[in-house]
Amino acid sequence: MHAYDLLLQRSREVAGYNSTASVLAWDQETYMPEKAAPYRAEQLAQLAGLAHRLATAAEVGDWIKACEDIMPACADDLECELRQANVREWRRDYDRATKLPGRLVEDLAKTTSLAREHWAKARGASDFSAFAPWLEKILGLVREQADCWGYEDQRYDALLDAYEPGARVATLAPLFDDLQARLAPLLPRLRAATASADPKRLEGSYPVAAQQRFDRRVAESMGFDFEAGRIDSTVHPFCTEMGPRDCRLTTRYNENDFTSALFGVMHEAGHGLYTQGLRPEQFGTPMGTYLSLGIHESQSRLWENQVGRSRAFWGHWYAEAVEQFPRLASLPQADFWLIVNRVEPSLIRVEADEATYNLHIVLRFELEQKLVAGDLAVSDLPAAWNARFEELFQIPVPDDRRGCLQDTHWALGLFGYFPTYTLGTLNAAQLFDAALARVPGLEDDLQAGKYARLLAWLREHVHEPGRRFSPAELMIRATGSPTGADAFINYLQAKYALA
Amino acid sequence: MHAYDLLLQRSREVAGYNSTASVLAWDQETYMPEKAAPYRAEQLAQLAGLAHRLATAAEVGDWIKACEDIMPACADDLECELRQANVREWRRDYDRATKLPGRLVEDLAKTTSLAREHWAKARGASDFSAFAPWLEKILGLVREQADCWGYEDQRYDALLDAYEPGARVATLAPLFDDLQARLAPLLPRLRAATASADPKRLEGSYPVAAQQRFDRRVAESMGFDFEAGRIDSTVHPFCTEMGPRDCRLTTRYNENDFTSALFGVMHEAGHGLYTQGLRPEQFGTPMGTYLSLGIHESQSRLWENQVGRSRAFWGHWYAEAVEQFPRLASLPQADFWLIVNRVEPSLIRVEADEATYNLHIVLRFELEQKLVAGDLAVSDLPAAWNARFEELFQIPVPDDRRGCLQDTHWALGLFGYFPTYTLGTLNAAQLFDAALARVPGLEDDLQAGKYARLLAWLREHVHEPGRRFSPAELMIRATGSPTGADAFINYLQAKYALA
Repeated sequence: MHAYDLLLQRSREVAGYNSTASVLAWDQETYMPEKAAPYRAEQLAQLAGLAHRLATAAEVGDWIKACEDIMPACADDLECELRQANVREWRRDYDRATKLPGRLVEDLAKTTSLAREHWAKARGASDFSAFAPWLEKILGLVREQADCWGYEDQRYDALLDAYEPGARVATLAPLFDDLQARLAPLLPRLRAATASADPKRLEGSYPVAAQQRFDRRVAESMGFDFEAGRIDSTVHPFCTEMGPRDCRLTTRYNENDFTSALFGVMHEAGHGLYTQGLRPEQFGTPMGTYLSLGIHESQSRLWENQVGRSRAFWGHWYAEAVEQFPRLASLPQADFWLIVNRVEPSLIRVEADEATYNLHIVLRFELEQKLVAGDLAVSDLPAAWNARFEELFQIPVPDDRRGCLQDTHWALGLFGYFPTYTLGTLNAAQLFDAALARVPGLEDDLQAGKYARLLAWLREHVHEPGRRFSPAELMIRATGSPTGADAFINYLQAKYALA
Repeated sequence: MHAYDLLLQRSREVAGYNSTASVLAWDQETYMPEKAAPYRAEQLAQLAGLAHRLATAAEVGDWIKACEDIMPACADDLECELRQANVREWRRDYDRATKLPGRLVEDLAKTTSLAREHWAKARGASDFSAFAPWLEKILGLVREQADCWGYEDQRYDALLDAYEPGARVATLAPLFDDLQARLAPLLPRLRAATASADPKRLEGSYPVAAQQRFDRRVAESMGFDFEAGRIDSTVHPFCTEMGPRDCRLTTRYNENDFTSALFGVMHEAGHGLYTQGLRPEQFGTPMGTYLSLGIHESQSRLWENQVGRSRAFWGHWYAEAVEQFPRLASLPQADFWLIVNRVEPSLIRVEADEATYNLHIVLRFELEQKLVAGDLAVSDLPAAWNARFEELFQIPVPDDRRGCLQDTHWALGLFGYFPTYTLGTLNAAQLFDAALARVPGLEDDLQAGKYARLLAWLREHVHEPGRRFSPAELMIRATGSPTGADAFINYLQAKYALA
C-alpha cells in the first residue's frame, strides 16, 4: 500500500473515533441523565486517547515523510494538488500533536480542568485573587506549549497559529489597531443613530413552540438541510459535526424575546452550513475539514448579522414573524429593526452588539499578548483591564466579575483564541461584500428571502475548499484582498446610513 | 500485572467501546437525521470491529488459561467467588466468540442484512417463496455456527445456549409441553371470563403530553431512576444500557389508547430496573452484566403483567388515570380492568394477550427445532405452520404475512431466541410468587402503589448477582425450584378467579 493511502486510511480511522466522540459530547449536552456524567467522561477519554495514539504513532510520521520525499509537480491536476495539500496539512497536524510531550498534555488537561472550577468560583465571588495562582500556572504551561510548537517572531504567534493557521501578531496587531482607530469615532454616531430604540417594546410572550417553528423556517430558507442535521435545546448553544451528513445545532429559548434564539439559530446554522458544505467524499481528511476558527466564525456572523440583522431580511420575514408572534403587531418594523441593531457599549462581551463587540476583543488581544510575553504580571491584570476598558468604552468596570473574570477562555488555556472572533466579523463583512459584487441579482434575492445563490457562492469560495488554502489565501481568492477592516467599517456606515 | 487484572482491564475496555456503540445506536433510533445513516453504520462497524479484536485477541485466551490454572479454593470468600465466576464467564464468552471463523461471522452478517430486506418485501407481498432461498441459506449458516460452538445432545442446544445459558431441549421441551397441555383447557375459560370486555369503550383521545406525565409517574413509582435514565419516543420500543448509570427507555404513543404506551413503558422500565440494579462497580465485567434473555424478560413481564395488569395496581392508579384522561370517567374501573386483561386468540404474536402469547412461542419453538435439525424442509414451513397454528388456536391462517412471515427473528438468524420470551413469562410468575411469599406485607404495598420492597427483593435475588449463577441456579435460589409452569398457570387461574 502506498504511504498516501495508509495516511488516508489512518486519517479516516481517527475521524471515525472523533466523530463518535462528538455524538457522546452532543448527547451529554442535550439528553444525557446527570448521573451518567462520570462514566461519560471515561468514554470520552477512552476515545480521545485512542484517536491521539493513532494520529501520533511513529509510522504516521514515516508515511508523511515518504509522501513528502516523492512529491511530484502537479501541473494543473486538481486531484494531485488536493493530495499534496492533504500531505501538507497532515504534516502540520502531526507536528503540532507530536511536538508536545505527553507530560505537558496531561498537565494542561488536568490543570485547566481544575482551573475551570476555581475560575467559576472566583467569578461568582468576584475574587480575582482566588483565580490568580491558577492563571499563573496555566500561563507557565501555555508558554511551554508555545516553545514546543516553536515560532519565528514571538511566542504568542505559536498559540495564535493553533486557531488561525498563518496568523501572526505582525499582521494582526496593525489590523486591530486600524479597526479600533476607525471604530472609535464611529461608535458615538452609531449610538446616536440607534438611541431611540427601546428594547422594552420587544419584550412579551413568545411561546417556545412558535419560536421553534419560525426558527426552523428561517434555517430552512438559509439552506440548512434538516435531513442531515437538527436543532435541539441546550444551556450553551453550539454547532457540532458528527459525520459527513450529520450536523447538530443547539439554541436556547427566551420566552420573553424571540430574537435571542432566532439570531442564535442563524449563527449556529451559519456554522452548520459551512459544515454541510464541506465535501462529504473528503470527510476525515484535511480537504474535508474546516479551515480555521476565523473562517468558521465568518460564516456564523455573516448569516446572523449581514443577513439576519439587515433591513432586507426583515422586509421579507417581519410579516411572518407578526403572524407567529401577535406581540409584534403593535411594533412597527422600522422600530423593531432599530431595536435588534441597537449600538450601546456594555460590560459583558457575549451581550455586546456587533460593533462594540470588537472592542472587547481588542482589549483581550492586547492583554493576552502581554500576559504570554510576561510584560504584564498576573497580579496586575485587573488594574490593566479596568484602565484599558475605560479608555475603550468610557465605562468604569465595577468589579472583576464583570471585568477580567467574565470569560472562561483563559481558564481553559485558550490564549490566542479571542482574535478569531473579530477575524470572523471582518471576514464576514468582506465575504458578503464580495458576494454582493459578484453574484448578479443577489440584492433582489435577499429582499425576497431567497438565499440559494448566496449559499452557492459561499459553498464554492469558502466551504468546498476545506483546508486547501491558508485563511489568508482563501480570503484573497474569494474577495481580492486579505482580511481588512474596510468592508466591516463600510458595512456599519451603510447600515446606519452614516456613509 | 496479574492475568486476572489484565482480563479485568480488557473486559472494561471492551465494555467502554460497546457502551459507546449503544449511544450511537440509541441516537440512530431517536434523533439522528436520516442522511446520517450510512456514516453511522460505518461508525458502528468501526467500534464493533475494535471491540471484537480486543475481546478475541490471543492474549485474552492466555490470561484466562493462566487464571484457570491457579484457581484457588474460595471457602466462603465472596470476593474470591466473584472473581472465579468472572473467569468462568470470560471463558464462556471467549470460546463462543473465537470458535466462529471470521468468514462465517462475516457471511452471517452480510446474509442476514440482505435477508432482512427480502423478508420485509416477502412479508409485504405475503410471498413465502421469495424469502425461502434466504431462509435456506441462513439455516445452513446457523447450523455451521452451532457446529462451531459445539453441543452434546442436539445442534439446536448450541443456539439456545447463546441466549439462555444452560438451556437445553431436553428440559425445555417437556416444560413447554406441560405448559401447552395446561393452557389448552384453561384458555376457553379465560376467554369466557373476559368475553364481556369491549375494547372500543377504552378508545378515545389521550394527548401525548398527558400520557408522558402519567407514564413517568408510574415508572418513578416503580423505582426507575430518572437521574440515571430517561424515556424517549421511537417506532420500536426498547431499553438500552449506555453505562453503569445511564439506561434509556423508549416507547410509542397511541393517541387513541393510552394503555399501549403505558404497558410499553412498564415493560421497558422492568428491563431498565434490572439494568439499574446491576452493581455499578462491576460494570464491564460478567458480574455486572445481565444473565440471560429469559431472566431479562422476566423483569419486564413481571412489571408489565403481574404488577401493571393487576387489580391492585388499578385500585391505586385508576383515580389518577381518570384525572389525566377525562375519557375514562365514563368507564368503570372493573370494566377497564377486564379490557386490559382480555384473552382472545389471534394471529399475530406481538398483539397477543399474556395467556395465548405462549402458544405462539410453543409453535415457533417446535418448528425452529425441526428446521435446524433438517426434519422440516423450508418449502414445507408454511403448511406446517398453518396446520399446527390451527391445532393450537382453532383459527385458520389466512396468509403467510399473518403466518410464518410475521416475525423478523429468523431472517436475522435468531434461532433459539423465541423460547426466552416464554421463559421470561414463566420466570416472572414464579419470581412474583416467591416475592409475595417472602416479603411480609407486600400485598398491602401493592394495593397502596408502593413498590420499593418488591424492587428491593428483585434487586437482591435477581439483579445484583449479575452472571454469578446460571439462570437455573438463580431461579432455584430465588424461588426454590427451577423454571416451571405452575406459578404461571396458578397466576392465570387466580387472576380470573377460576381456581
